Amino acid sequence: MKACLLWLVVLIQSFSTMSAYARGTGDLGVIIERASSSIQIIETTGNSSIGRVNGLGDLSHASIVYSRDARFAYIFGRDGGLSKVDILDAKITARNLQSGNSIGGAISQDGQLIAVSNYKPGGVKIFDAETLGLIADIPATYGADMQRSKVVGLVDAPGQQFVFSLWDAAEIWIVDMTDTAGPAIKKFKNIGLNPYDALITPDGRYYIAGLYGEDGMALLDLWNTDQGVKRILADYGKNEQRLPVYKMPHLEGWAIAGNLAFVPAVGRHEVLVINTDNWQQAGKIAVKGQPIFVMARPDGRQVWVNFALPDNSSIQIIDTQNLTIIKELKPGKAVLHMEFEPRGEEIWLSVRDENRIEVYDTRSFKRKASLSAEKPSGIFLTSRAHRIGL
Amino acid sequence: MKACLLWLVVLIQSFSTMSAYARGTGDLGVIIERASSSIQIIETTGNSSIGRVNGLGDLSHASIVYSRDARFAYIFGRDGGLSKVDILDAKITARNLQSGNSIGGAISQDGQLIAVSNYKPGGVKIFDAETLGLIADIPATYGADMQRSKVVGLVDAPGQQFVFSLWDAAEIWIVDMTDTAGPAIKKFKNIGLNPYDALITPDGRYYIAGLYGEDGMALLDLWNTDQGVKRILADYGKNEQRLPVYKMPHLEGWAIAGNLAFVPAVGRHEVLVINTDNWQQAGKIAVKGQPIFVMARPDGRQVWVNFALPDNSSIQIIDTQNLTIIKELKPGKAVLHMEFEPRGEEIWLSVRDENRIEVYDTRSFKRKASLSAEKPSGIFLTSRAHRIGL
Repeated sequence: MKACLLWLVVLIQSFSTMSAYARGTGDLGVIIERASSSIQIIETTGNSSIGRVNGLGDLSHASIVYSRDARFAYIFGRDGGLSKVDILDAKITARNLQSGNSIGGAISQDGQLIAVSNYKPGGVKIFDAETLGLIADIPATYGADMQRSKVVGLVDAPGQQFVFSLWDAAEIWIVDMTDTAGPAIKKFKNIGLNPYDALITPDGRYYIAGLYGEDGMALLDLWNTDQGVKRILADYGKNEQRLPVYKMPHLEGWAIAGNLAFVPAVGRHEVLVINTDNWQQAGKIAVKGQPIFVMARPDGRQVWVNFALPDNSSIQIIDTQNLTIIKELKPGKAVLHMEFEPRGEEIWLSVRDENRIEVYDTRSFKRKASLSAEKPSGIFLTSRAHRIGL
Repeated sequence: MKACLLWLVVLIQSFSTMSAYARGTGDLGVIIERASSSIQIIETTGNSSIGRVNGLGDLSHASIVYSRDARFAYIFGRDGGLSKVDILDAKITARNLQSGNSIGGAISQDGQLIAVSNYKPGGVKIFDAETLGLIADIPATYGADMQRSKVVGLVDAPGQQFVFSLWDAAEIWIVDMTDTAGPAIKKFKNIGLNPYDALITPDGRYYIAGLYGEDGMALLDLWNTDQGVKRILADYGKNEQRLPVYKMPHLEGWAIAGNLAFVPAVGRHEVLVINTDNWQQAGKIAVKGQPIFVMARPDGRQVWVNFALPDNSSIQIIDTQNLTIIKELKPGKAVLHMEFEPRGEEIWLSVRDENRIEVYDTRSFKRKASLSAEKPSGIFLTSRAHRIGL
């Protein structure tokens, strides 16, 4: 009888732990801790840390997409490691070292496919979201001698499509995975030299690649692909002397407010404003340094900007109605990434060199919480599960 | 020892059931079954039913908002019953019969407040989202003799605001709940006769009330409230004979595609198209019957329309690029509501008089699933938790 009671106690304890996992996943998120190959799992209702997962390889420049049930995070490591983590259970459930050097990924509209963009060997691989087993291997070959290009700016688009750019080949490709056994590939050539990153508008209609090798950006209207790729902002910065670029800006953190889009200017202390009705430049805003991420609060009223060295301890906030800077924050050394909560009341910032994550109220600009983290970089909340292109 | 084993079996069984509740909540949803005072809990990955909750009172015209963790559904019944349901556990965790006759509600930006709009007695009551305890009671009084108006078109807006319209008083009110002990109320008068419902744009900037008593709609720019309420579409339908209105259209199912908004015309066989850059009418589309819900697929490429009697067994689908009807579906008798999955690949339809819920692929228009339901009406997916105004 004593043994019986002991069993019961052990059983109750173990099941109690299990039942603790039963919680909503809508307010969860993951923070990349790149120096320690780990992620931290957080929740945004009480602004607290609820778990950590180790053993995720090289997480420099790592990014994340979420399963459609907001339970699993797919983590794209720089070393080509693709990991699937159960964030309720804080465990790796699958892992695939799928290439030697990788730069981000995307999840298909239906949630069944995970695509990874690779530098080496250059191309895109597509995996089963359940098992991480390979479904399609799409080498990014170009030219007469079939060289392989680095792939950048990979996003998902409606209709089971993935869209990406070829850095070395000056091309944009669309892959339609409706038939997983026979991916349909559409290629757009001579889109501009060295596309370095890309964004897709929140509705999934316009794909825009930033160009490092020449002025302007490459715009593809996915509703009208027969019109080909157009150059926009071609005259921007023409004949001006370029500043040395300390860090390439990111475009995946698009910022669209009403009919204005805000993008970082490469190597300039400026945020460009584009009218999305005609894709003409509508203005530019002088900022403190070279912008890296330019992100709109979900209601579009504010745009938050972080910077490359030597200005990476500051954040500037733009009012999108009058295009002025209304606030500057100094969260600490090396503010690498920002993520708004889905309805915009708070924002999470990673302050890498101070090993902290900060949470701010976006109306009062007051700090609401501060959490310890190991060299934090990217922050990704589960609400991304429900967004096109994120 | 035998008793001991029996206990173990019972324990394991009960805890196994509990651990089944550990799952992501991002792909869940709730369907109103109004004849049986119940809701059905569904999931959209396998398109299946996973639970039912009874005892929710009069659910005609019921609607739902979700907690920020996507675990709790707040259900607004017609009889003034406000119920909080744990959808992981399929249980009512709190219930408050807060008025005699109610017509919908909203959840604050931070998720801590639930607002309910009441017909009788006319006004808005605001509750603690955790306990459903009363926090503020805002009677919708107007005129010299302080009559009380029915309240309609209640939505949340950024900055802890709720916005709503007074049917009898021709007013729009904004309540700022930043200080829960002292709600700040701003009133806009003479906005037009009999506002019957309202929408807020996805960014939470523009609040638009439909008017039953006169032509046009009332527009309030929440970024510039000092400019007051403006009339838009004032000339629409002027001097035309009105058709009898079989059912009032709903506006909360706004449809915005690029810079076009699509709204149902009251009592006419038309969907109105509005340019959101200037809020002028940009067109109209002849449809099969009197439109009720006019809803955009999340990528904005399609708008789906259902109808009042006698056309309520049909759905028409508009291509938003060329403003033509590209498809008509006949899901069955009395198609009452529609809800897109968050990235738009599928849509859920309630077919009340056939006791079925149908799921369609939005590209092929093929039926993907059919579920039994008791007189289903509203369908609400948890991705609403992360949207402004839903």
